[in-house]
Amino acid sequence: MSDQDLNERNDDQTEGGAPSGLIGASDPDSPTDPSDTYDGLHGDVVDTIVDAIEADNVQILRELVAPLHFSDAADLIERLSPEQRKTLLEATSDVLDADLFAELDETVRDEVVDIVGLDAVAEVVAELETDDAVEIVDELEDHEQQKVLDAIPAAERTLIEEGLSFEEDTAGRLMQRAVMTVPQFWSVGETIDFMREIAEQDEWETPNVFYDIVVVDPRHKPVGTIPLSTLLQHKRPVPVSDIMHERMKLIPVDMDQEEVAFLFRQRDLVSAPVVGDEGRLVGMITIDDVVDIIDEEAEEDILALGGVREDDLYSATLDTTKQRFSWLFVNLLTAILASVVIGFFQGTIEQVVALAVLMPIVASMGGNAGTQTLTVAVRALATKELTATNALRQIGKEILVGGVNGVVFAVLMGGVAWAWFASPEIGLVIAMAMIVNMIVAGLFGAIIPIALDRRGIDPAVASSVFLTTVTDVVGFLVFLGLGAVFLL
Amino acid sequence: MSDQDLNERNDDQTEGGAPSGLIGASDPDSPTDPSDTYDGLHGDVVDTIVDAIEADNVQILRELVAPLHFSDAADLIERLSPEQRKTLLEATSDVLDADLFAELDETVRDEVVDIVGLDAVAEVVAELETDDAVEIVDELEDHEQQKVLDAIPAAERTLIEEGLSFEEDTAGRLMQRAVMTVPQFWSVGETIDFMREIAEQDEWETPNVFYDIVVVDPRHKPVGTIPLSTLLQHKRPVPVSDIMHERMKLIPVDMDQEEVAFLFRQRDLVSAPVVGDEGRLVGMITIDDVVDIIDEEAEEDILALGGVREDDLYSATLDTTKQRFSWLFVNLLTAILASVVIGFFQGTIEQVVALAVLMPIVASMGGNAGTQTLTVAVRALATKELTATNALRQIGKEILVGGVNGVVFAVLMGGVAWAWFASPEIGLVIAMAMIVNMIVAGLFGAIIPIALDRRGIDPAVASSVFLTTVTDVVGFLVFLGLGAVFLL
Repeated sequence: MSDQDLNERNDDQTEGGAPSGLIGASDPDSPTDPSDTYDGLHGDVVDTIVDAIEADNVQILRELVAPLHFSDAADLIERLSPEQRKTLLEATSDVLDADLFAELDETVRDEVVDIVGLDAVAEVVAELETDDAVEIVDELEDHEQQKVLDAIPAAERTLIEEGLSFEEDTAGRLMQRAVMTVPQFWSVGETIDFMREIAEQDEWETPNVFYDIVVVDPRHKPVGTIPLSTLLQHKRPVPVSDIMHERMKLIPVDMDQEEVAFLFRQRDLVSAPVVGDEGRLVGMITIDDVVDIIDEEAEEDILALGGVREDDLYSATLDTTKQRFSWLFVNLLTAILASVVIGFFQGTIEQVVALAVLMPIVASMGGNAGTQTLTVAVRALATKELTATNALRQIGKEILVGGVNGVVFAVLMGGVAWAWFASPEIGLVIAMAMIVNMIVAGLFGAIIPIALDRRGIDPAVASSVFLTTVTDVVGFLVFLGLGAVFLL
Repeated sequence: MSDQDLNERNDDQTEGGAPSGLIGASDPDSPTDPSDTYDGLHGDVVDTIVDAIEADNVQILRELVAPLHFSDAADLIERLSPEQRKTLLEATSDVLDADLFAELDETVRDEVVDIVGLDAVAEVVAELETDDAVEIVDELEDHEQQKVLDAIPAAERTLIEEGLSFEEDTAGRLMQRAVMTVPQFWSVGETIDFMREIAEQDEWETPNVFYDIVVVDPRHKPVGTIPLSTLLQHKRPVPVSDIMHERMKLIPVDMDQEEVAFLFRQRDLVSAPVVGDEGRLVGMITIDDVVDIIDEEAEEDILALGGVREDDLYSATLDTTKQRFSWLFVNLLTAILASVVIGFFQGTIEQVVALAVLMPIVASMGGNAGTQTLTVAVRALATKELTATNALRQIGKEILVGGVNGVVFAVLMGGVAWAWFASPEIGLVIAMAMIVNMIVAGLFGAIIPIALDRRGIDPAVASSVFLTTVTDVVGFLVFLGLGAVFLL
């Protein structure tokens, strides 16, 4: 790998190799203010590009798109409508950077694959780092996969095929295969010389950017890591074995990506060696991939709590509709269950219609109080802050919080109901129901996610449907039941 | 700064300086399996430690706690009850690492400050990197702040005081002040020699670990950055100005931390220079701090959507109760508003009590469908995927999704209601109300967060209360209104 190639991935330099095109290559000179600060892809840039697309002005389009950083170009493509995407890609795919492919949302990437064709995809894949290449190939249909793999040089193809053999969402999929390694009997000087030497050869096994050097034994087992800054702060004769960190963290190739992310966060790592069978080094995970995972996991939790299975921003309307249907269907069943409870009290409601007017308040307050508890618990489980050690204490606390707020809101709402319907009995009934339902909300808001988590079920996905069933049923049952007792 | 100090922050090496104690120093030899893989703080370790705390066995406690990584030790302290924390800290504070202080949750840290005392805090703060030190000092009461600052050596105190002068949640608070800089006329060789030299002096301005070198002009303005891996892959005579990235991203000292995180993610950065007035270099932000911000921002959104203002897992019961009250109070008002709507139809309900039984279903389905839309929109706004370019398209899509699912659920629920109450008219009324409310849910689920975002209000915080007000009011109004028209 030449110096220019080494710089290329850092994409921010003005000198160095011309960025690789998405299909083939060619790049205009794009001078920008070096002290330019960054604030994302500007809306007016997007507007200008959209105008050029609508006007089908290929020349201007190419001039506008070529200087974009690949992340911004990916954002641009995502924001366009499918028709606009097609026009843009047909006009500019040869000036776009291969790396933008890895930055695209999965749904959008599918579309782009269809537009640019499999030959172009094969060229892109051959240029990417193994982890990105594997991700893209993995998403293709089986027959497409074979076609793309066939078009890739043998050595890279082997690495990608190996990558595909690892389970999805494991360390094996996150790692890049190229690792800077040195034997344990080398010195700092030898290590630096080796890096200079290898940089001059066109070795595609060399990582583009790296932060730690892995010291390995003759059987390629890691025995230590050295941060580059440590290496640079020692004299040439110092043996690497004197400055390496022997207590590095090794990541088994089948470790779940969530665990990998937790480890990186916990230990403030920038890179970590991945080991396979018998502890042999097979790759390296770097922080940039982990940041994506952290983002992804947080997104999954946010969406799951909102009843959405996956980010469907770019999905077609029909796909989105189908995807959201299942959650709504479950919700319909629980809503019907709550209605059945109300149905038991039809006679009571006919006589005291005020109960029908007020009953949603009790259920709603329980649902909201429970959701607060649930949200804190789900988040604390995800960050491993809520564990067996403090679970009972937290449940106790939530019951207490529910009870105290229950009493406060019982007084408030009891007063309002009394005044509204000029009936102290109605005030009393809603007050009692409020206290009961908010204590129940605190209890179940904490217990449901903890119980699901113990059973290995993602608490973010399933908790809220159980919770609202409980708070609705209890809310209606207690309020109408007390109403039947005290008001008839 | 000596070699040993330089290694110290990497905490995973077996050789090197003894880790600094939380108060003073002293560290037992803690041999562990070097090939140990990591999976967090084990529950049984915690249990053993809790047992030792309960038995008040200081000796065993010290032996158990001393070998823990500071992140794990922080987790341990967080999981304990306040009484357990006190016992643990009194027995072991001299074997704990200063860095654990920066890892603690804010609420727990307050408690720890009270237990260990301000003198110990001052010692800890003096050992930390500027960004961590500033964070801790900032949280202290005013009179405590002064006492701690007075106990810190002048040079470090000045840096901390400067740090405190930056706005909270800006780049200035995230950055470390120590940056590895070289003048632009130096060569690779001179740079490496300089790093070795400075490592041997006891210069506390030297960063502990770094990933990029900043090339500066005589007025200390950054003119380029060099990743260490690039530096190491070039020969000694090469001028740094030949290999530096001139198009680096400079971060203004007052940039919001959310923007900083976005930039790091978008550009896969591991570190970036921070500039102050006139573009002079003032510090460096590294990825580990940004990972914390990414986590924090995602957490804020998750909690806000659940109606919780801040992570209150470790807060006292009364604080949690107060904090959750305000959201529940707003919810009570909207629930009362919905009840007022129902109140208009008391006469109708008295005649057709089935309406009271079924009405929560319409409101609930609207609320859930709207929450799905809202969640996707809030997340897409946070990741800058939803912008002016595609906002209208998304709103249109959500209306359509709501409409299609509305029709499907109208048929389902219409049938159920017809069968249940043996009345085709009731089935028709709930079917029509369902369609209307789910279209409204799609529309407002998308529009509310977009509108709040345009007005500079965090859509995660305020969206859901507006949404459920709309879906409740519309749900009850349309269903009961249609009922009054068709069933009386």
